[in-house]
Amino acid sequence: MDRSTKASALITLGLPKGSLQESTFELFRRAGFQLRVGSRTYFPEVDDEEIDAILLRAQEISRYVEDGVLDAGLTGHDWIVENGSQVVEVCELFYSKASTRPARWVVAVPVDSPVKSVKDLEGKLIATELVATTKRYLAQEGVSAKVEFSWGATEAKAALVDAIVELTETGSSLQANNLRIVATVMESTPRLIANQRAWQDPAKRAKMESLALLLRGALVARSKVGLKLNVSQENLEAVLAELPALRRPTVSTLWGGNWYAVEAIIDESVAKVLIPKLKHLGAEGIIEYPLNKVIP
Amino acid sequence: MDRSTKASALITLGLPKGSLQESTFELFRRAGFQLRVGSRTYFPEVDDEEIDAILLRAQEISRYVEDGVLDAGLTGHDWIVENGSQVVEVCELFYSKASTRPARWVVAVPVDSPVKSVKDLEGKLIATELVATTKRYLAQEGVSAKVEFSWGATEAKAALVDAIVELTETGSSLQANNLRIVATVMESTPRLIANQRAWQDPAKRAKMESLALLLRGALVARSKVGLKLNVSQENLEAVLAELPALRRPTVSTLWGGNWYAVEAIIDESVAKVLIPKLKHLGAEGIIEYPLNKVIP
Amino acid sequence: MDRSTKASALITLGLPKGSLQESTFELFRRAGFQLRVGSRTYFPEVDDEEIDAILLRAQEISRYVEDGVLDAGLTGHDWIVENGSQVVEVCELFYSKASTRPARWVVAVPVDSPVKSVKDLEGKLIATELVATTKRYLAQEGVSAKVEFSWGATEAKAALVDAIVELTETGSSLQANNLRIVATVMESTPRLIANQRAWQDPAKRAKMESLALLLRGALVARSKVGLKLNVSQENLEAVLAELPALRRPTVSTLWGGNWYAVEAIIDESVAKVLIPKLKHLGAEGIIEYPLNKVIP
Amino acid sequence: MDRSTKASALITLGLPKGSLQESTFELFRRAGFQLRVGSRTYFPEVDDEEIDAILLRAQEISRYVEDGVLDAGLTGHDWIVENGSQVVEVCELFYSKASTRPARWVVAVPVDSPVKSVKDLEGKLIATELVATTKRYLAQEGVSAKVEFSWGATEAKAALVDAIVELTETGSSLQANNLRIVATVMESTPRLIANQRAWQDPAKRAKMESLALLLRGALVARSKVGLKLNVSQENLEAVLAELPALRRPTVSTLWGGNWYAVEAIIDESVAKVLIPKLKHLGAEGIIEYPLNKVIP
Amino acid sequence: MDRSTKASALITLGLPKGSLQESTFELFRRAGFQLRVGSRTYFPEVDDEEIDAILLRAQEISRYVEDGVLDAGLTGHDWIVENGSQVVEVCELFYSKASTRPARWVVAVPVDSPVKSVKDLEGKLIATELVATTKRYLAQEGVSAKVEFSWGATEAKAALVDAIVELTETGSSLQANNLRIVATVMESTPRLIANQRAWQDPAKRAKMESLALLLRGALVARSKVGLKLNVSQENLEAVLAELPALRRPTVSTLWGGNWYAVEAIIDESVAKVLIPKLKHLGAEGIIEYPLNKVIP
Amino acid sequence: MDRSTKASALITLGLPKGSLQESTFELFRRAGFQLRVGSRTYFPEVDDEEIDAILLRAQEISRYVEDGVLDAGLTGHDWIVENGSQVVEVCELFYSKASTRPARWVVAVPVDSPVKSVKDLEGKLIATELVATTKRYLAQEGVSAKVEFSWGATEAKAALVDAIVELTETGSSLQANNLRIVATVMESTPRLIANQRAWQDPAKRAKMESLALLLRGALVARSKVGLKLNVSQENLEAVLAELPALRRPTVSTLWGGNWYAVEAIIDESVAKVLIPKLKHLGAEGIIEYPLNKVIP
Repeated sequence: MDRSTKASALITLGLPKGSLQESTFELFRRAGFQLRVGSRTYFPEVDDEEIDAILLRAQEISRYVEDGVLDAGLTGHDWIVENGSQVVEVCELFYSKASTRPARWVVAVPVDSPVKSVKDLEGKLIATELVATTKRYLAQEGVSAKVEFSWGATEAKAALVDAIVELTETGSSLQANNLRIVATVMESTPRLIANQRAWQDPAKRAKMESLALLLRGALVARSKVGLKLNVSQENLEAVLAELPALRRPTVSTLWGGNWYAVEAIIDESVAKVLIPKLKHLGAEGIIEYPLNKVIP
Repeated sequence: MDRSTKASALITLGLPKGSLQESTFELFRRAGFQLRVGSRTYFPEVDDEEIDAILLRAQEISRYVEDGVLDAGLTGHDWIVENGSQVVEVCELFYSKASTRPARWVVAVPVDSPVKSVKDLEGKLIATELVATTKRYLAQEGVSAKVEFSWGATEAKAALVDAIVELTETGSSLQANNLRIVATVMESTPRLIANQRAWQDPAKRAKMESLALLLRGALVARSKVGLKLNVSQENLEAVLAELPALRRPTVSTLWGGNWYAVEAIIDESVAKVLIPKLKHLGAEGIIEYPLNKVIP
Repeated sequence: MDRSTKASALITLGLPKGSLQESTFELFRRAGFQLRVGSRTYFPEVDDEEIDAILLRAQEISRYVEDGVLDAGLTGHDWIVENGSQVVEVCELFYSKASTRPARWVVAVPVDSPVKSVKDLEGKLIATELVATTKRYLAQEGVSAKVEFSWGATEAKAALVDAIVELTETGSSLQANNLRIVATVMESTPRLIANQRAWQDPAKRAKMESLALLLRGALVARSKVGLKLNVSQENLEAVLAELPALRRPTVSTLWGGNWYAVEAIIDESVAKVLIPKLKHLGAEGIIEYPLNKVIP
Repeated sequence: MDRSTKASALITLGLPKGSLQESTFELFRRAGFQLRVGSRTYFPEVDDEEIDAILLRAQEISRYVEDGVLDAGLTGHDWIVENGSQVVEVCELFYSKASTRPARWVVAVPVDSPVKSVKDLEGKLIATELVATTKRYLAQEGVSAKVEFSWGATEAKAALVDAIVELTETGSSLQANNLRIVATVMESTPRLIANQRAWQDPAKRAKMESLALLLRGALVARSKVGLKLNVSQENLEAVLAELPALRRPTVSTLWGGNWYAVEAIIDESVAKVLIPKLKHLGAEGIIEYPLNKVIP
Repeated sequence: MDRSTKASALITLGLPKGSLQESTFELFRRAGFQLRVGSRTYFPEVDDEEIDAILLRAQEISRYVEDGVLDAGLTGHDWIVENGSQVVEVCELFYSKASTRPARWVVAVPVDSPVKSVKDLEGKLIATELVATTKRYLAQEGVSAKVEFSWGATEAKAALVDAIVELTETGSSLQANNLRIVATVMESTPRLIANQRAWQDPAKRAKMESLALLLRGALVARSKVGLKLNVSQENLEAVLAELPALRRPTVSTLWGGNWYAVEAIIDESVAKVLIPKLKHLGAEGIIEYPLNKVIP
Repeated sequence: MDRSTKASALITLGLPKGSLQESTFELFRRAGFQLRVGSRTYFPEVDDEEIDAILLRAQEISRYVEDGVLDAGLTGHDWIVENGSQVVEVCELFYSKASTRPARWVVAVPVDSPVKSVKDLEGKLIATELVATTKRYLAQEGVSAKVEFSWGATEAKAALVDAIVELTETGSSLQANNLRIVATVMESTPRLIANQRAWQDPAKRAKMESLALLLRGALVARSKVGLKLNVSQENLEAVLAELPALRRPTVSTLWGGNWYAVEAIIDESVAKVLIPKLKHLGAEGIIEYPLNKVIP
C-alpha cells in the first residue's frame, strides 16, 4: 500500500471485512483506537497517525502480509494455514463473531447420511472453501477423496456432494440446515500477524507489539472487574487469602482506625461466588466497578 | 421441577414472564448472571450451574413456590398476597418496568363518573384481575360491591362496569384512557421468595442468600457513583464532613507532600450538588466513576 | 355501553385485543372500514357513524355480548363454547394471526413423556386456560384427571404438570419447546356474534348482516384474482369449459371481428396452472388483476 | 439433486442466493408461486408440488444445470459465459436488484489513475471475480495484462492493483469508492436455463415453458396498466388509433346511447403521455387500474 | 435553472423538501412519475425527459417560479400568498402530510391564557413564520398588534410571547404543547403553479396541463374503487338507479342468457353501504377492484 | 419566562432544538442532569428543581438571553455573533453533533465553478442563513457582493446562485452535493451564556457556575480514563515521570513489600502510547477504567 493516505503512517494494517468486522472494530475501540468507516468505505479512519488501515476479505489478508503489501494484519489462523503464508504470528486473540470460543472447520453431512466417520469418506466428493487444509487433513487420516472448491453458501451443497467442510461457531447454522458434524478438521482463532521484513524493522515491530499489548489488554478486561472493600485488621488475612493472585492486591490504611482498604481485580464470572464469601468473612463496603483494560 | 435440565442444579427459580421480564434480566446481568433465552423459550440458560430457571406468569409463581415445585421465585408482593401463598420472603427488590417506584393497584373510574370515593362503590360492579385482594379491601372499607374477574385489558372495561382495580406505575396509561384514580388498594414491589422447606436446607438457603446479596448490590449500584479527590491537610476535615456516611471514606497520603487522596461512594443524584461544594472547599482533581455493585 | 361516544351509533362492537388484533384490523380495512387506535387506546375510531367499537380480551367478548352490554362481537369459537354463551353466530370468518387455517387447542406433553394417548392422562394434572372445555372433553373420552387453571405462558408448565392444553396454529411454538401433540381438543375459527335481543331489532340486524357480507367479501377476495382474455369464436367453448363456475363469465364481442372478450374470477392458487392451459387453448391477451372484494 | 425432498417433484430448480434473491422471490410471487425460506434455509418451500428449489450462488448455477444435477436454474448471463456452460437458454428475464436495467461488468480505476483507456492496461495487474471473461476481453482488445482472481470486496483492491473489473448496476458504489469507469467488459441479464437432456423430456419441458410463461407474464405486468374509457361514436376511431396494438382493445356498447366502452392494456410509462391525449380526443371516464400478469 | 441537467427538459419544476416531500413523491408515483433521490440529493431523477426537478423549501418555491428561475412548482397556497407571488395557479391539489384535509394557520395561545378571541390581541406580541399574512389578517380584524418573525419551532415560543400563528393539520401538536386555538388566519392546500411567461409558451403550458390532469387523476383514484356485478334483466333498472352518476356505467349482455354485466366507479367510502344494497336488489357476483387513476 | 412552570426555579435555561439536541442531552446526562422530553415537547423535564429548561432554535437563544427572557442558554458562537447579542459568555464547550471539532461556516461552490477564491465573488450573488456575518466577512476581504437570505436546504441552491455560505462539520454533505469549499467564514463552538443582569445576581451566578463546572467535568471525562498500576520502588520515579501532571498521581504502599500502587488520570487518546511505555518501564498489573467526570 505505497499509495498510503497518511504521510505519517508507520504500518499498514489489514482488517477483516464481513462477519468479523463488527467485533473487530469493537475490540479496537476498547483497546483505544477509534475506527470510522466514512465515505471511502474500505479505508476506515483510525485515530492513530501511525496506522493506515484497509478492510479486506479474511481469506486474503495473510497473502498480502506475506508479500509485504501490508505490514500487518488481523485474520484467522485457518486462512494463514490454508494460504501457507510465511508470516510472523504476533499474538492470538480469543474473540469471534458472537463469543470467545474458537471457530471450527468441520466435516458435515446430512443428518440421514450413511457417512458416520471420516473413514466413510473414502472415494467420496467433498466441497469446501478450505481446499488445501482439507486435503492435508484427509491425507493424515489416510482417506483418499476428491475435494472440490466451493465459492461459499457451502451448506446448500451438502445436498449435491457427499460431505462439506464448513466453518461453524455454535453449530446452529448447520443444525438449521439439517446437517450433522462428523469430524473437526481444524480450530481457528484470530491472530495478529506481521510481515517478516516489517518485523525486523525496530520501529514497526515496536508498534505492532504495542498494538498486541493493547488488544490483549482489552480482551482480558472484558471478563474482569475491579473490586474494592474495607476490612478490619483481624479479618484482613482471611480476606486476602480469598483474593486471586492475578494482580497483587493493594492494601491501604483507612483514615482514623485499624481498618484497611483492599483493591483487587477478579474474574467477572467468579464475582457472584466471591462477593458473598468476602462479605461473610467480614468485608464491608464492597464495590465492584467496570474496567477498560487489564495488562498483567 | 424434578425434570430439571441441569444435573448440578441446587435451586429451581421461577422468573416473571412479560412486562417485568426485560428489567429482571437486566438486573440479573448487573448482578453477574447471564440469562439467555434460546430455542426453549421458557427455560432461560443461566451461567450458574446451581440455578435452573423457568419463566412463568407473575400471577402463578408464588403458588408453585408454596407447593415446592419451585425452590424460589421472583414475583410481586401483590400476587403473593392475592394467592395467599405461605412462602418465605427473602428480600424486597426496588425496581419495576420503568422506574424504581413501587407499582400500585388503584380503584379507577371514568373522569366524569359520579364515584368520588370508595364509599360510592356500594352496590356497584367492579372488574379486576386481583379479585381476592379487592374483596378484602372493600370489606375493610365497609363497602359491599360485586367484584368480577377480568382477563386483562381492564382499562377498556371502565366503560362497561362501574369501576376497575388496575395496576399502575406512572398513571399515564390511566390518564390516556380518561380514567381517574379514586383510591389505592395496595402497593407492590418485586420480592425474592423461597419455599419453606427449601429455606430449611442449608445449601439452598445459602444459595438464595447469596443471590439476594448480589441482586441488592446491583440495585444499590444503579443509583451510586464512586468519587475520588485530592485535598490538602488543612481542608481535609471540611471535605470529609460533607461526605456521606454510607461507606467509610478511604483516605491515603499522596506521595511527596501533605496532601491526601479521599475515596467515597455517593448517591448519583447528589453528585451535581456535592461536587461543586467539594470543589469550593478546596478539593482538587475530583473524579467520578461508574459502579457495578455496592454491598454495604 | 350506554356511555357510547357516538350519538349516531347503531351497534356496539367488541373486537379482540392482542394476537388477533392486527389481522382483524387489516380485514376490516379491506372490507372498507378504517379503524384507528388513537389516544383512547381501547376505543378505536371507526369511519362508520353507526358502529361504536371497543377492544377487549377475546376471552370475555362473548360474555358481554350475551349480557347485552355489547350488541355484537368478533371472537373465537373456542371462547364462546368455553363461556357457554348464548349468542347468535352471524358468520364464521376464516382467518387467523398468520394463515387461513383454523387454530387448534391440543393436549401436549414433553417429547419424552410416557403419555402417548388421552387415556394415559387418567389421574394426571393438566394445566390450561380453557378449563371447562378441557373438562368436558376428558369426560367424553372417559378420562378422569385434574384440570388446573393457567394464566398463560402455559407451554413452560409442561415441565411442572403432566400435560397442558394449549392453542396452536402451526405447531412451531410447541416444537420449539420440545412438546409433542397427543390429541386435539377442539378447532376454532373467528366468528361474528350477536346478542339475541339485538338480533331481533331489524335495524341492528341489517347492520350486522351488512358487516358480515363485507367481511366475508374481503376474505374471499384475498384468494381470488380477476382474469380477462380474448379468444376467437372457434376456441370460445373450449376456453369457457376450463373456467370455474364461481361467477358466470362475462363474454362480449370484440370490435371488428369474430373474437370475444371473456372475464372471470378465479382462485389465485390455480392461476399458475390455468393460465398456461388457457394460452394453449388459444386464449390471447390474457391479463390477471387484483381484487378488493368478491361477493358471490 | 436425486436427494429431492418432494416425491412429486418434476423439476429441480436452482435460484440465486444473495443480491438477486429478494427480487427473484418477488418475481416468483407475482408469477403466482409462494416461496418461503424456513428452517432449512437453502431450500425454499414452493407451493407447487412439481418444483423442488435450491438456493445457490449465481456463479455456480449454470455449472450444476450443465451437469444435470439441476434440471433448470435462474442465473445471470455473465456466469453462464464465464463458466462456458452448455445449457439451453429458455428465456431472458429483464430484472435486477434495483431496476430493469442490465448489470455491467466494467474496468474501473481510481479517479486519479493515469489509466484512461483499455490500451493503458498493457502490462498491468487487474483483479476481478470474472477472470476468464476478462482475459478473453483483453485478448480481443489486443492488450496483454495479468488478471488475478479476487474473492470479492474488489473495490477495495483498486488501491492495491492497477485496475479492477467489477459488476455495477448504477455506478453509485464505484463512485462512493472514488473509482472511475474505463470500459465495459460485458452486460448481463438473468436467464432461465435448462439442462439439455431435461429439455428433451416432454413433461419437464412443458413445466419449464409454463414457468417461463408465468415469469414473463409477471415481468411484463410490472410495466403495464389496464385502461378503460368511454367514448362517443364520432370519436371512437380517433381514440382507437392512439391505443397500442399489444392486445386488441375490447369495445362494448354502453347501455342506452351511442357511446362505447373501450378497454386496453398500455405501458405504464406511456400512460402519462397517452391519457392526456385520449382526454383531448374526447375520451371520458378514463380509469387506470393495476395488473398482476400480462400474457400476450 | 439554466444549469439544467437534462438537455431535453421542457419545464423545470420545484418540489417541496421536508414535511410534504414523502406524500408528494407518492402522489407523483401514482400519477405515473418515478422520482428518485440519488447521490445528488436535491435533484430527484424523474423518468420523464421533459421534466427537470429540484427540491426546495416550500417557502421559496413561489418566489423562484415568479422570477422565472423555475417554470413550475408545487407549493402551498399559504406561501404563494405570503410571498405575494404573481404566478399562475394551474390547479389545487387536496392532499397533505397525513390526510386530505387542508392545513390551517391558526392563532394559538397557552390553554390558560386570558386571550379568548382575536380582539384580545390588541397591543400584544405575536410570533409567526407567516408575518405578512398575519399582519393583513389582523388589519382586517381591526386589531393592532406587533407581529414578529419566527424561525420555526414556533410552538415553544407561546411561552415567550402573547400568541403564535402556526400551521396545524390535526391540532395534535398544538394540543401536545398545551396550546388552544383562538382563530383561523387562513386555510391552505397544495397548488401547482406556473410562471406567467412559461404559461404563454404553448409547449410548456401543454406539459403543465398534462401534469395537472395526471396528478388530479391519481388523487381522485385514492378515494374510488371499481365495481363489477351481474344482474338479471328484471333487476337491471333498480340496480342502475343506485349507481352514482360519476361515470356512465358500462352494461354488457352476458353470454347465453338474459343477464347483464355492469361496471361502475364508486367512492370507496360508500362501498360499505352500497354493496349490501346492490346485493339486496338482486346483484350477483359483485367484485370490487383497486384503481390507479380516475379522470372524469 | 415569568410563566415558569416551576415554583422553585432559580434560572431559566434555553437549550438548542434540532441537530445539537441529542448531543446536548447526552452531555447533560453525563453531567448528572436527567432531561426528559415528555408530552410538552419543548419543555424538557429536568431533575433539578432550580432549572427551568426550554428548547429553542439555536439561532434565537442568544437574543432571548440578551433580552433577559432567559437567564442562560446554550448556543453556538456563530449565532451569538450573527445576532450581535450582548451576553456574558460563561464557558466554551467543545462538542458538536458528531465530534469534538468546531463546526465551520464556509463559502462553497459547485465543483466545476470558475470561482476559485473569495476575490472571484466580486459582483456575485451569495445565499446563506448567516447574512450579517457573511457581509462583514466580505467587507473585510474587500469584496462587494450581494448576500441573500436562505431559509435552509442551502446546498440545493448552489445550482441557482453563485455561491453559498453554509455550516459544515465534516464536509461530507457538501461533497455529496458536489460542492467545493472556497474559504472559511468563521468557526463556531457551543457556549454557555448568561444574561448580564442575571450574572450580577449571586444566587443565579452560583447556579450557572456550578452548571458550567459539571458540564465541563463531563466533557473532560469523555476523553479521559483512570489508570492504576503497581510498580517496585526502583522503577517508581521513572514511571511517575511519564505520568501527566493533570492531577497529582496517588501513590500508596502495597501490603507486604516495597511495591507501590499508583493512580492517575490520563487522556484516553494517549493511553495507547502510554500503557506500552509504562509496561516497558516495569509497571505491572496495569488497569484502565472509565470515568464519568473529571474536575481538575
